[in-house]
Amino acid sequence: MNQNDLSIFNEHESEVRSYVRGFPTVFHEAKGYKLWDLDKKEYIDFFSGAGALNYGHNDDNMKKKLIEYIQEDGITHSLDMASKAKGEFLEKFHEVILKPRDLNYKVMFPGPTGTNTVESALKLARKVTGRTNVISFTNGFHGMTIGALSVTGNAFKRKGAGIPLQNAVTMPFDNYIQNTNQEIEYMERLLDDNGSGIDTPAAIILETVQGEGGLNAARMEWLQAVEKICRERDILLIIDDVQAGVGRTGTFFSFEPAGIKPDIVCLSKSIGGYGSPLALTLIHPDYDKFAPGEHNGTFRGNNMAFVTATEALNYWKDDQLEKSVQEKSQRIQQFLNDMIKKYPQLKGTHRGRGFMQGIASEVDGLADKVAGKCFEHGLIMETAGPDDEVFKLFPPITIDDEGLEKGLAILQKAIEEVVAEEKDLVTS
Amino acid sequence: MNQNDLSIFNEHESEVRSYVRGFPTVFHEAKGYKLWDLDKKEYIDFFSGAGALNYGHNDDNMKKKLIEYIQEDGITHSLDMASKAKGEFLEKFHEVILKPRDLNYKVMFPGPTGTNTVESALKLARKVTGRTNVISFTNGFHGMTIGALSVTGNAFKRKGAGIPLQNAVTMPFDNYIQNTNQEIEYMERLLDDNGSGIDTPAAIILETVQGEGGLNAARMEWLQAVEKICRERDILLIIDDVQAGVGRTGTFFSFEPAGIKPDIVCLSKSIGGYGSPLALTLIHPDYDKFAPGEHNGTFRGNNMAFVTATEALNYWKDDQLEKSVQEKSQRIQQFLNDMIKKYPQLKGTHRGRGFMQGIASEVDGLADKVAGKCFEHGLIMETAGPDDEVFKLFPPITIDDEGLEKGLAILQKAIEEVVAEEKDLVTS
Amino acid sequence: MNQNDLSIFNEHESEVRSYVRGFPTVFHEAKGYKLWDLDKKEYIDFFSGAGALNYGHNDDNMKKKLIEYIQEDGITHSLDMASKAKGEFLEKFHEVILKPRDLNYKVMFPGPTGTNTVESALKLARKVTGRTNVISFTNGFHGMTIGALSVTGNAFKRKGAGIPLQNAVTMPFDNYIQNTNQEIEYMERLLDDNGSGIDTPAAIILETVQGEGGLNAARMEWLQAVEKICRERDILLIIDDVQAGVGRTGTFFSFEPAGIKPDIVCLSKSIGGYGSPLALTLIHPDYDKFAPGEHNGTFRGNNMAFVTATEALNYWKDDQLEKSVQEKSQRIQQFLNDMIKKYPQLKGTHRGRGFMQGIASEVDGLADKVAGKCFEHGLIMETAGPDDEVFKLFPPITIDDEGLEKGLAILQKAIEEVVAEEKDLVTS
Amino acid sequence: MNQNDLSIFNEHESEVRSYVRGFPTVFHEAKGYKLWDLDKKEYIDFFSGAGALNYGHNDDNMKKKLIEYIQEDGITHSLDMASKAKGEFLEKFHEVILKPRDLNYKVMFPGPTGTNTVESALKLARKVTGRTNVISFTNGFHGMTIGALSVTGNAFKRKGAGIPLQNAVTMPFDNYIQNTNQEIEYMERLLDDNGSGIDTPAAIILETVQGEGGLNAARMEWLQAVEKICRERDILLIIDDVQAGVGRTGTFFSFEPAGIKPDIVCLSKSIGGYGSPLALTLIHPDYDKFAPGEHNGTFRGNNMAFVTATEALNYWKDDQLEKSVQEKSQRIQQFLNDMIKKYPQLKGTHRGRGFMQGIASEVDGLADKVAGKCFEHGLIMETAGPDDEVFKLFPPITIDDEGLEKGLAILQKAIEEVVAEEKDLVTS
Repeated sequence: MNQNDLSIFNEHESEVRSYVRGFPTVFHEAKGYKLWDLDKKEYIDFFSGAGALNYGHNDDNMKKKLIEYIQEDGITHSLDMASKAKGEFLEKFHEVILKPRDLNYKVMFPGPTGTNTVESALKLARKVTGRTNVISFTNGFHGMTIGALSVTGNAFKRKGAGIPLQNAVTMPFDNYIQNTNQEIEYMERLLDDNGSGIDTPAAIILETVQGEGGLNAARMEWLQAVEKICRERDILLIIDDVQAGVGRTGTFFSFEPAGIKPDIVCLSKSIGGYGSPLALTLIHPDYDKFAPGEHNGTFRGNNMAFVTATEALNYWKDDQLEKSVQEKSQRIQQFLNDMIKKYPQLKGTHRGRGFMQGIASEVDGLADKVAGKCFEHGLIMETAGPDDEVFKLFPPITIDDEGLEKGLAILQKAIEEVVAEEKDLVTS
Repeated sequence: MNQNDLSIFNEHESEVRSYVRGFPTVFHEAKGYKLWDLDKKEYIDFFSGAGALNYGHNDDNMKKKLIEYIQEDGITHSLDMASKAKGEFLEKFHEVILKPRDLNYKVMFPGPTGTNTVESALKLARKVTGRTNVISFTNGFHGMTIGALSVTGNAFKRKGAGIPLQNAVTMPFDNYIQNTNQEIEYMERLLDDNGSGIDTPAAIILETVQGEGGLNAARMEWLQAVEKICRERDILLIIDDVQAGVGRTGTFFSFEPAGIKPDIVCLSKSIGGYGSPLALTLIHPDYDKFAPGEHNGTFRGNNMAFVTATEALNYWKDDQLEKSVQEKSQRIQQFLNDMIKKYPQLKGTHRGRGFMQGIASEVDGLADKVAGKCFEHGLIMETAGPDDEVFKLFPPITIDDEGLEKGLAILQKAIEEVVAEEKDLVTS
Repeated sequence: MNQNDLSIFNEHESEVRSYVRGFPTVFHEAKGYKLWDLDKKEYIDFFSGAGALNYGHNDDNMKKKLIEYIQEDGITHSLDMASKAKGEFLEKFHEVILKPRDLNYKVMFPGPTGTNTVESALKLARKVTGRTNVISFTNGFHGMTIGALSVTGNAFKRKGAGIPLQNAVTMPFDNYIQNTNQEIEYMERLLDDNGSGIDTPAAIILETVQGEGGLNAARMEWLQAVEKICRERDILLIIDDVQAGVGRTGTFFSFEPAGIKPDIVCLSKSIGGYGSPLALTLIHPDYDKFAPGEHNGTFRGNNMAFVTATEALNYWKDDQLEKSVQEKSQRIQQFLNDMIKKYPQLKGTHRGRGFMQGIASEVDGLADKVAGKCFEHGLIMETAGPDDEVFKLFPPITIDDEGLEKGLAILQKAIEEVVAEEKDLVTS
Repeated sequence: MNQNDLSIFNEHESEVRSYVRGFPTVFHEAKGYKLWDLDKKEYIDFFSGAGALNYGHNDDNMKKKLIEYIQEDGITHSLDMASKAKGEFLEKFHEVILKPRDLNYKVMFPGPTGTNTVESALKLARKVTGRTNVISFTNGFHGMTIGALSVTGNAFKRKGAGIPLQNAVTMPFDNYIQNTNQEIEYMERLLDDNGSGIDTPAAIILETVQGEGGLNAARMEWLQAVEKICRERDILLIIDDVQAGVGRTGTFFSFEPAGIKPDIVCLSKSIGGYGSPLALTLIHPDYDKFAPGEHNGTFRGNNMAFVTATEALNYWKDDQLEKSVQEKSQRIQQFLNDMIKKYPQLKGTHRGRGFMQGIASEVDGLADKVAGKCFEHGLIMETAGPDDEVFKLFPPITIDDEGLEKGLAILQKAIEEVVAEEKDLVTS
């Protein structure tokens, strides 16, 4: 296949295909924050595989280790047998990530995707508590398999289940009702009221920044309050850090600034480093109660991902990357606020934190138009939120200033054009 | 990590780890049907990653293509955007697999694991029929996420859910009641009786040979009868070919000899060729009704797996591999029947077909002991069945005669030793 | 209202009304086995309020006691407070029914209907076992509220739920597969197979003779085998004796001839004696574990029903009624077998036992026609079975020979006429 | 049984018995607002069978009609066949209740208890909308069968189910968060947010005054707002008027002052007039879509209850009773407010409206003590609320001034004594 032609996909792939519709070209080469299609057209990547490519495409160090591993016929697939690559990952993850953060977790490999880790977390929480209910939040997104979908807010995704989704109760996420501590008070009231109809949950599951849900960033006080709710009522706290974790918000785990210690942490997406499927479920030893094999899966032992994941951990040996992300996050925030001010026609609100920021526009369909224009001008960016009302900046966290500014410039151009077109629309 | 030492795993990995307990060593190198641990001890692989390594470890042709792809910075992770690697796979899969078999399917990438494809299939069947119930079979195994677990028979795995599993009804698999057509008649009776309490299902899901469930191979007549049941009642037929597919039984799809045409086919495990996570859901165009993005997942676009998957399809350009598998299957069957005859103490029954054969032993714990002895003597083999009563031969389908005979010899030795020990046990 | 006119019902009552369509007249007076409509037309009652009027209409002794009670302003409604009427019932029920049969039960008043007692039984069984699954049988009927409907087989009734019905598994009732002990073996196999997908149930619930389900009478050996299954696996046995109990099959409890001792027994319908709402849940003391008020209901204390229920127990002080029912049952059976022989056009099969007998006709719609003709000629009789294929003789168990013969004569006439008409239909 | 002795109940009745523990005596005679036990001790009834005896005990006019009906052998039990007694009820209910209030409903007889009517309403709403979710409210109480229990808030009752309760979502009832319109805004937000995780419901079910839940009276504006929410989103509005209906709040239906027109209304308890089991489901003709017999039940045709229900409707031929209830309600409210002021030790808050008023006390266990003292002094009164924190005045709505004042005097005495004892407790 050497032609930039989508007919193969139109003919043979299911109608469920989605991103190919928004980015209608055939990609081939990729490096760092750049992608090229078969016409060699260059795109800047402000999408990062929906958070699976935090280190950009095909990082050179990881690439080197990966090729070495393949060349020496390191075992590729090992289920949950012990392998050198896996052992090295486990050790380094402990040394570089857990120990310095004073976190005490056993590592479970639940299958290589986000929904696998979420399902394993929910099952475990229910098993250890003997309760069935789980509390999730408005606009939470946790995956597409029935267990994970039951704690996912999106109505369109939920409908795809074809069955009523059960054993979960939705609570308002931070800032949902717009009244500083009201969501917490409301949740406490419901949990403590013997007449509320809310069965005591096994766990509360949440993302600290809701990616798919529209870049809603919880305040640290809110996270602390949720942890307190859990502690006082023997409820397990599960942080789904699949999208917000691995540095996307400026720290390895997104919850670090809150100082909380979840009972279970779900990691996937960028944990493999190179974009290969890998997921971890981190479990406080007190709750490490699955019997051997009680949850399993064929692709728990993706050794190529272990190799690159181990290499990727070098980024976390010092605080250089963290600092860089935090600084660039401020640049992004400033840029977005400028846009909102400069283009009131956006009816825009700033959303998110770290490298998960964007603008929610009240204008119907506008976010989609902005993303469309960006693509035309060589920038890949997606929308989020229940009505796709947010355009979402997700650059690799390793992006340099030049790449970031280039991307922002394209975005500004796209906004300008869309705003102009909207005006024409209204005038005509 | 250069020492063959399990302490890292014991210390850092969750108690849920399982195979490492049966095969307590640290693997590193692998090639074809062989594995080596860090002590350079060689093992013959009659396990094949539970069916994910049908082509053996690190196949040279695939390895070459994979390294090339990585070296040229081909895009690694592409969600469901179009990529060259994906396009080439789609085209070749159509040309080499579907067209020659007169099968008409759209290809969905539901996420890279078996449970992802099963969940997508169940969701789709419920969506297109508007019904919620699904019929599955005794000793069926379909995955560990809640939707797939609901159609899985194993009590131990089901308990791990922590919630009652719903929207599914178990029927007896072929030969369950030991009376030629009775299971079919029983199923028909229940489906057609307005008072049976069995709600008309959206779909019937089955494996043609139940791998985890104990190597129960359905007769072709039974498969045809199930298809007929579906056709006559507008029920969708889903074949979960995750383990039995991709040549394991001697044809690419395990259902080919029955001449049936399922509405949905689930593929994973060996479809990627090299052991990397990949899964497909094949959907008859009439049922290709998910809206764009209604089911999604981060790792739908695992391009390294597309590259090796495409290369692997070369095995299917002619019938050489098929014939070889079919011939060697007879050798395996003969060997197993010999063992059953020669060692009546096994109280053994032959199970399975193709490269999914084994012996069910009525002696409590015996299958486990045989597998343990095999490991000691350098053969990797697992057990299956609800009580782990079956030892299960799963060599790579590309194994040569020498490898096969070596493995069988070890197995015979292991059986002999176990039988001798059992006798001592009884005598003492 | 003095006119025999249905317009009020057509105008003001919901479309869900049902029996009024089959018996389109306005009833007013009733006595013993007779009913009269507003035109003073007399009907013989072979329906008995679907088993709620086993002692016929307005029994003179009960009537006397009831009027006395009302006249002396005995408390009518007492929730579950203690009342004289209730105390007397409890005492007499113990003395006349439980003690002589060596049955040891605590009495729960779960609300006054059959579905109330079934729901209380299911809830209790789940609570005391900590399990959620319940096994019910093909063509079982247990009530219309969601818990009871989940263990009910009828597809039409199930659809009315509007939600998937859960936490129950259907097994084949005795004689379902027509092979003496196969249903039991099949059930044992599924319960003991760790891979069957059948979660160990809290309870097995069954009717010894399925009334609504088509007069399927279980053999005593089958009942004993089910009890054994329960005992060996710590599963509770619930007998729903709502319709078959209170003498309908010739003994007070329908399960007496089998010598089994259920853990929980559900009684309603005729237990009140006079046709007033009353239900009991009999609970073996070991399982009497609901906390005070954990299940409740407004009409648990229907004292008018206690008064007539107590009086009705006089019928059971000796074995006169039992003997009479058993003798007349033989007469009914002989009559039905004669009909089947005499009118092969019925394609009839005998069904049921005791005062729950009937004929299942293979001719589509024939049972309904017979019931229709009966009504024209002054006999009230209903149909049963998943396709209304059974006409069902349900006379009061107190009916005298004259009444019984009169009814049978009308039935024979109706059969004759229907058979003749069917013939005409075929000929023309 | 002529002795006031509870031993029969202790010996033979299930542990689930409840009110007999709070009112430990054997009642026998009852008239109007008075009850007598077997020792001829008189009690004033401020309990009214939990709302089933709004017209007091054994009303003379109803008694006369009832005895006449029984004496003339009027049919007692008629399933859903037409009977004179039922026809007369239907006609009069239409003339006296529905027509003057401009309400257009078909009447369904769903079985004779509150939980029967609630289950029928939920099933119907799900059937006609094709949706499965139902919204209920904090501290709502709708019944003990699984469907009704799923929309009931009380944790203790819910636990009795033994299974996870599904297909329902709890919303905050009026005044739950104490911020005038916030509950409505919150509900609207959740319903209209495509990411909220709240599936569009078939129906919203509510009590206008929550009896069991603690006498929480919704404001009329809130009821109107809920109706508006339903109308704008094609959601059915179900008012469960089982306890608050039939005059208890001062109008026949409790929702009349709000001017709303529910799609379905559930009635039971006092609708029968004399305390006999009877329930109605009132259905707007547009939703009268159950097929004949799709929901049924043995005791739908309780003719003795029809007779007294018809007679009871005479109370509603003019507005005398309504006015009397409304006036006396003010007296009750004034009395309770006086108590709260006079006895600050109660830490009391006024609750409820009409003849459903009471005091919520913040002092743990105090409400129970007050009810206990009342019983000692000859007043029957129960507590309500998730922690039994409310003592609840439920006199018959026909009570005269003398009876009311007598009861209030006893209550005041009880409060005084409890307050004094509490003081002693604190001092000592």
